[in-house]
Amino acid sequence: MVIRPYGYAIWEAIQDYLNVKFKETGHSNMYFPQFIPYSFIEKEASHVEGFSPELALVTIGGGKELEEKLVVRPTSETIVNHMFTQWIHSYRDLPLMINQWANVTRWEMRTKPFVRTLEFLWQEGHTAHATPEEAEKEALQMIDVYTKFAYEQAAIPVITGRKSKVETFAGAVRTYTIEAMMGDRKALQAGTSHNLGQNFSRAFGTQFTDENGQRQHIWQTSWAVSTRFIGGIIMTHGDDAGLMLPPKIAPIQVVIIPIWKKADEKTGVLNAASSVTEVLKSANIKVKVDDSDQRTPGWKFNFWEMKGVPLRIEIGPRDVSSGSVVISRRDVPGKQGKVFGISMEPSILVAYVKDKLDEIQSSLLERATSYRDSNIVDVSSYDELKEAISQGKWARGPWSASDAEELRVKEETGATIRCFPFEQPQGMKTCLMTGDPAEEVALFAKSY
Amino acid sequence: MVIRPYGYAIWEAIQDYLNVKFKETGHSNMYFPQFIPYSFIEKEASHVEGFSPELALVTIGGGKELEEKLVVRPTSETIVNHMFTQWIHSYRDLPLMINQWANVTRWEMRTKPFVRTLEFLWQEGHTAHATPEEAEKEALQMIDVYTKFAYEQAAIPVITGRKSKVETFAGAVRTYTIEAMMGDRKALQAGTSHNLGQNFSRAFGTQFTDENGQRQHIWQTSWAVSTRFIGGIIMTHGDDAGLMLPPKIAPIQVVIIPIWKKADEKTGVLNAASSVTEVLKSANIKVKVDDSDQRTPGWKFNFWEMKGVPLRIEIGPRDVSSGSVVISRRDVPGKQGKVFGISMEPSILVAYVKDKLDEIQSSLLERATSYRDSNIVDVSSYDELKEAISQGKWARGPWSASDAEELRVKEETGATIRCFPFEQPQGMKTCLMTGDPAEEVALFAKSY
Repeated sequence: MVIRPYGYAIWEAIQDYLNVKFKETGHSNMYFPQFIPYSFIEKEASHVEGFSPELALVTIGGGKELEEKLVVRPTSETIVNHMFTQWIHSYRDLPLMINQWANVTRWEMRTKPFVRTLEFLWQEGHTAHATPEEAEKEALQMIDVYTKFAYEQAAIPVITGRKSKVETFAGAVRTYTIEAMMGDRKALQAGTSHNLGQNFSRAFGTQFTDENGQRQHIWQTSWAVSTRFIGGIIMTHGDDAGLMLPPKIAPIQVVIIPIWKKADEKTGVLNAASSVTEVLKSANIKVKVDDSDQRTPGWKFNFWEMKGVPLRIEIGPRDVSSGSVVISRRDVPGKQGKVFGISMEPSILVAYVKDKLDEIQSSLLERATSYRDSNIVDVSSYDELKEAISQGKWARGPWSASDAEELRVKEETGATIRCFPFEQPQGMKTCLMTGDPAEEVALFAKSY
Repeated sequence: MVIRPYGYAIWEAIQDYLNVKFKETGHSNMYFPQFIPYSFIEKEASHVEGFSPELALVTIGGGKELEEKLVVRPTSETIVNHMFTQWIHSYRDLPLMINQWANVTRWEMRTKPFVRTLEFLWQEGHTAHATPEEAEKEALQMIDVYTKFAYEQAAIPVITGRKSKVETFAGAVRTYTIEAMMGDRKALQAGTSHNLGQNFSRAFGTQFTDENGQRQHIWQTSWAVSTRFIGGIIMTHGDDAGLMLPPKIAPIQVVIIPIWKKADEKTGVLNAASSVTEVLKSANIKVKVDDSDQRTPGWKFNFWEMKGVPLRIEIGPRDVSSGSVVISRRDVPGKQGKVFGISMEPSILVAYVKDKLDEIQSSLLERATSYRDSNIVDVSSYDELKEAISQGKWARGPWSASDAEELRVKEETGATIRCFPFEQPQGMKTCLMTGDPAEEVALFAKSY
């Protein structure tokens, strides 16, 4: 998959936000090699079992057959632990909290742009702690960073929770996830945070001397968000006319389309467009003028609608003389506003645009939330679950059944447990499958 | 090679600066796949000849032997052209100007941290133009961006020029380079910009319809700076005590070391240290307090000297009572300044620190420039060239001899033509090797 500039700019917006949050929470960026000796991958039993079917292997380097095959990283826990073992000696070296922005490779049979690709970009955080409590706290902190990003920046009302044992990351003790409902009502796992316990530290012998002089294995986490999130944004907010981007992550927040018929109108319209551009730019609004001669205004309207630009400003000859512009929202087709007096007082326009961008941001989140909520059905039996899933909805119901029962649901309905949500109804419940007591409800859905 | 946080922070400083300059000059970031079908690499004859000895090949994916081997990108011209061929149809699609930040792999036999590694990080710009003049202008513009970065940010007085035909990039018509003199007087090629002409567009059939309706091959450039630049900074400015980082790219510009002997002094000293920290931070100065109990002040002095932090601030009990601090420059050992009255008027300290950081920035560039100039010898004969190289210096002399003569110099002296510098002495000259007329002087040196 090639990521072209407009899509990549969304990734840059994701990076800019998360990078600040990661540093605020005490993490440093660094970089590990992407080629991992095959023997490293084999060290943690469930890890190799989970990843070996989808590895890309380098077998030839510099013209020679290699003695040991090199794995192109599918994720970096193994090489991270190889290094942590050399860096960590005492409790004074802990916590060790790092992150890397990198490409990873997983040999996928069925690919889908942004959502499931052979190579993708991501950040992977890796941390080492002296106690299990600290590791758990870190894993929860990072899924919270992702949740806030989803709600506040991407306007995606994810459901945050814990994965079932069956769905837990290969090598983790516990996996936390944010699950998003796409426009087709399939679930997208949009970010995960793993409490790795001592699984990797035992496999790699990563030990430290604690405050009492005892040798202990470190407690670890890892957490990741990838370019898949771009797919999540597209599939949450898009409609039949194309993308619909939340203003906070849109590469272009406002597109300006100058409209003229006669040649003598052109200069005035273009001058007005460029002075509006300057006004908005100096207020840190991301703006683009589409002043090409090649296309009609109608073509441009459709094009920028498809690109999901939140606001469109039209400036025609009459606007030039009245000092006004016409503003349309991408998320409310047909609805227009007209702002007057902007040649006299540019701050009026800035205030109006900022206000509309905020409105769009909230409105996209509200719309996605009510769509999500109207497509989750509370179920209390397997029949109800099957019914909900067959209608394309998500099913939420009490669950305490076995891994085997969970796999049976998957086989029979195509749905998996997306998570046990953090937000749970009060009181004891009865497992929808077995009728046994259940402490938690689980969320079932078909997923990407 | 693993890049740990302190080294990676230098890379982030390089990225932050260049990314802004690339966007200002009209480029967009994007991302191409790193696996390139082997058949792509073979299309441009000199390209495959240059790169085939150092390729890493993926031959197994998802458990199966692949039908076509995949090359782990050593550089992306081939896959870029494969895509450009699909994107570019008309002169209206030009210029197309993109950049990617990525990892690349070259199977190096002799590796050296940062300078020559099997995998490294870089940015690679790729542009397509309608005319050879535009491509040439772009190639020159980007080597100029690199030159300014080297001088103004990294304090490295590179010599900018054109590579000889022998040293030109595999597939380029012309390669421009910035060459830096390291502390051991070896040359480091720190960044290159290539005018690719139509070599790749002919190999890949990348054509456009020009304004007259004629089909033409596009004219291209590519240009790159890598994590090797970190090595360049270390080896330009370091001394026997360790690194010496230019303030503009230093991850930590000021380290504060609180000093106390008695327990009752500790609180006052630490409070003073943290208020000085806040003052400097709010002036956007990158500051770190080393207040650990584990180490002595002497140990800390040595440690942060080794790390190359430009300024050190000491705060002891007497400083607390007099409202002063002691400030030392990394680049002028032993020289200290004492700033008084800072508890009354914090702006005094900020002004002093900013002033010193500027002084260090200029002083590092001046020092490196005079070191460079005192180690370049003007030569007019091969004997003089050999003499200069054998003394470990660089030789600059008129050159119009053949590729074969150039290779002979390399064999006999170990030195190569680093570049024909843009800055040339006036008038016709006589080739140092052949006695024939020569238009330009070339710069010879041993290199990394």
